[in-house]
Amino acid sequence: MALQSLQRVLADFAREREWEQFHTPKNLVMALAGESGELLEIFQWLTPTDSARVMQDSERAVQVREEMADVLAYLLRLADVLDVDLEQALLEKIDKNRLKYPVHLARGRADKYTQWGK
Amino acid sequence: MALQSLQRVLADFAREREWEQFHTPKNLVMALAGESGELLEIFQWLTPTDSARVMQDSERAVQVREEMADVLAYLLRLADVLDVDLEQALLEKIDKNRLKYPVHLARGRADKYTQWGK
Amino acid sequence: MALQSLQRVLADFAREREWEQFHTPKNLVMALAGESGELLEIFQWLTPTDSARVMQDSERAVQVREEMADVLAYLLRLADVLDVDLEQALLEKIDKNRLKYPVHLARGRADKYTQWGK
Amino acid sequence: MALQSLQRVLADFAREREWEQFHTPKNLVMALAGESGELLEIFQWLTPTDSARVMQDSERAVQVREEMADVLAYLLRLADVLDVDLEQALLEKIDKNRLKYPVHLARGRADKYTQWGK
Repeated sequence: MALQSLQRVLADFAREREWEQFHTPKNLVMALAGESGELLEIFQWLTPTDSARVMQDSERAVQVREEMADVLAYLLRLADVLDVDLEQALLEKIDKNRLKYPVHLARGRADKYTQWGK
Repeated sequence: MALQSLQRVLADFAREREWEQFHTPKNLVMALAGESGELLEIFQWLTPTDSARVMQDSERAVQVREEMADVLAYLLRLADVLDVDLEQALLEKIDKNRLKYPVHLARGRADKYTQWGK
Repeated sequence: MALQSLQRVLADFAREREWEQFHTPKNLVMALAGESGELLEIFQWLTPTDSARVMQDSERAVQVREEMADVLAYLLRLADVLDVDLEQALLEKIDKNRLKYPVHLARGRADKYTQWGK
Repeated sequence: MALQSLQRVLADFAREREWEQFHTPKNLVMALAGESGELLEIFQWLTPTDSARVMQDSERAVQVREEMADVLAYLLRLADVLDVDLEQALLEKIDKNRLKYPVHLARGRADKYTQWGK
């Protein structure tokens, strides 16, 4: 299903409940960040290694899926109310990052390109 | 483009740069929440009304699009490394919310269903 | 009570429970941001005006106090493990901001000083 | 210096710049979470071990100190506008956690007490 179709389902869900009044960009950004915070709480005490096995715990796997769904839901709502084409924005960002992080310079480095050469 | 195709582009981008070592679920969740924080900073001093006009400022519009793209990028990477079908997870969450927030009870209310009747 | 005394109480609490192993800076930063996310969730659907009245709802007031305490607790733990003098850091930051945001230029403006004159 | 004294300095700073209009609880919570996001970005790609050495890099040490100062500043402003006694709130939360996490049960465990026995 395309992102636009998912956005339509979410928009209908909000409209039927008269929730559009709450869905200002400011509020949606808060909700998006709040749901990201829920993901942080699941992972905060895990070692990186254990974090890679998180889906083997069936209870946690359900939580992780649901919080990720919530993040996507608010991101899609935000894109809808701001009229942002998310897919296009992502593809443009990837192109931009290809220039900022060329393979031969970025290989195996996690630091920001603005730090290189320092 | 389907979410899976976008995930593949992002996975290739990371693999070419040998960034997979950094893309543990724990780290990706931090990056996702960090990018949500960037969105918060854009909107934090705006009134809800001004937040709805944010895209009229061309400089801010670029920032908003880019931060949203970053959130999506890390969410898709996370889904990829955890093998979560994001679209399916979202559709299931919406179904669950239909039961938790039936139209006749949720109409015009922003509080969590667990607060109702209190 | 000085911040250092609060830090000592929290350090003892962690040591007695053998939680120091979990309190890496990375993990504490995640926990701090996770608790900030809890605050976001309390305020996300409130209008700015309603947000100023949040403590009049006794149940919410308890939540707000507890989440703020959690943020402070993790911030103090982080300062402890990184050996940062938080009070000194704050006073230095205020001095720096006095220079970046002189009264006659910053009056009534919420935008970042880097935006001025644009 | 007591927390109240720091709050007074910050309140004066805001009042002199006529920034009180922006310092609604909702906005301050966003700013607090935004600054936590800045901390996440510093630590997101670091291993837990490297995160413990972050202050050995003098440039990063400055960043970490400043972001921590920002988190404290917004937390203190929030406490001020909501009239929350932060120190009291923290001491009460610690007492509560002593009951929820008794030493003999919590020792060496990072999971939430609600997960025990599952």
